[in-house]
Amino acid sequence: MYAGPVQDLIEELGRLPGVGPKSAQRIAFHLLKLPKQDALRLARAVTEVKERVTLCTRCFNVAEGDECGVCVDSRRESGVLCVVEEPRDIVAVEKTHEYRGRYHVLQGAISPIEGIGPDQLKVRELLARLEPEEISEVILCTNPNIEGEATAMYLARLLRPLGLKVTRIASGLPVGGDLEYADELTLGRALEGRREVEA
Amino acid sequence: MYAGPVQDLIEELGRLPGVGPKSAQRIAFHLLKLPKQDALRLARAVTEVKERVTLCTRCFNVAEGDECGVCVDSRRESGVLCVVEEPRDIVAVEKTHEYRGRYHVLQGAISPIEGIGPDQLKVRELLARLEPEEISEVILCTNPNIEGEATAMYLARLLRPLGLKVTRIASGLPVGGDLEYADELTLGRALEGRREVEA
Repeated sequence: MYAGPVQDLIEELGRLPGVGPKSAQRIAFHLLKLPKQDALRLARAVTEVKERVTLCTRCFNVAEGDECGVCVDSRRESGVLCVVEEPRDIVAVEKTHEYRGRYHVLQGAISPIEGIGPDQLKVRELLARLEPEEISEVILCTNPNIEGEATAMYLARLLRPLGLKVTRIASGLPVGGDLEYADELTLGRALEGRREVEA
Repeated sequence: MYAGPVQDLIEELGRLPGVGPKSAQRIAFHLLKLPKQDALRLARAVTEVKERVTLCTRCFNVAEGDECGVCVDSRRESGVLCVVEEPRDIVAVEKTHEYRGRYHVLQGAISPIEGIGPDQLKVRELLARLEPEEISEVILCTNPNIEGEATAMYLARLLRPLGLKVTRIASGLPVGGDLEYADELTLGRALEGRREVEA
């Protein structure tokens, strides 16, 4: 339908997550209209990321160089690990300002349907960190969905026998949420996880 | 929050139309996970488009080289011009298989709010084509919104005195649509544009 390079660009954009054929076309024409240097800045940003960003050899967060910003930061509490699925989850936790320890990124979650088992995740690497880093608590911070729960369950069974404190983030109603609109699973979890009100 | 190049990429992606901060982050991490050559294909596609694609010197459609695919196609009907706002509108019209003539892309629509008047559009270039190409009909195929209607109105007033047939695409209910859900403006237009049913 379009001249070759335009069609190629639309196809490449359409492969991105959350970008359907219509948005791909819209973005492509936006890039066509943009001053050349602005469009090339995007191309360069993609290239830069692929050339310069690697995974932290310790926690598998994104990093420039050997270790990530959290791992090299000596002010971070040691002895606690927060286990997440993806690097972006680290940013979500960091934004809470509630956690000062280090992380471990599994690079996914257990999902039999997609053929992802513990061997495809950074589980072995997690186990290898426990002793040298003298970890006393592991916080399982995987997503509260089927895959994340299965992963948390698996890790809890694996880690508890090692004499570690293993905790899981709470499920419940989101702050500012409405009982009326909560699904029954979430509300059930909220009831299950109820805590005594301090006077 | 992120290592430099990741943040840069998220910012560049966030500038694209329809891509909010969350999607930008999602796309950035998708690109990080992708095999390097796949991600670089996107960067290359952007670069290619900016280096190779220009505007057709005759109709201002996107083109590789001097004239676009429609303009160089001698099988297209001459004498009729379909005036659209953007190159992507050509694709929309082409998909109908109802039109065999040539196009003229205005590169926008009249919008006083954005400071776009006839001088910012390819109107002069449209007028210059009428005589040499012996145009007898101009179909005003701008969007049926305020800007598109204003543009169509402006062009109609400009072109009619030249003795041309000037037509405007019909407004009305979309095929497969539902009277109940039609807004009153569209339904009003559908009534206004009613046609006698042939027995």
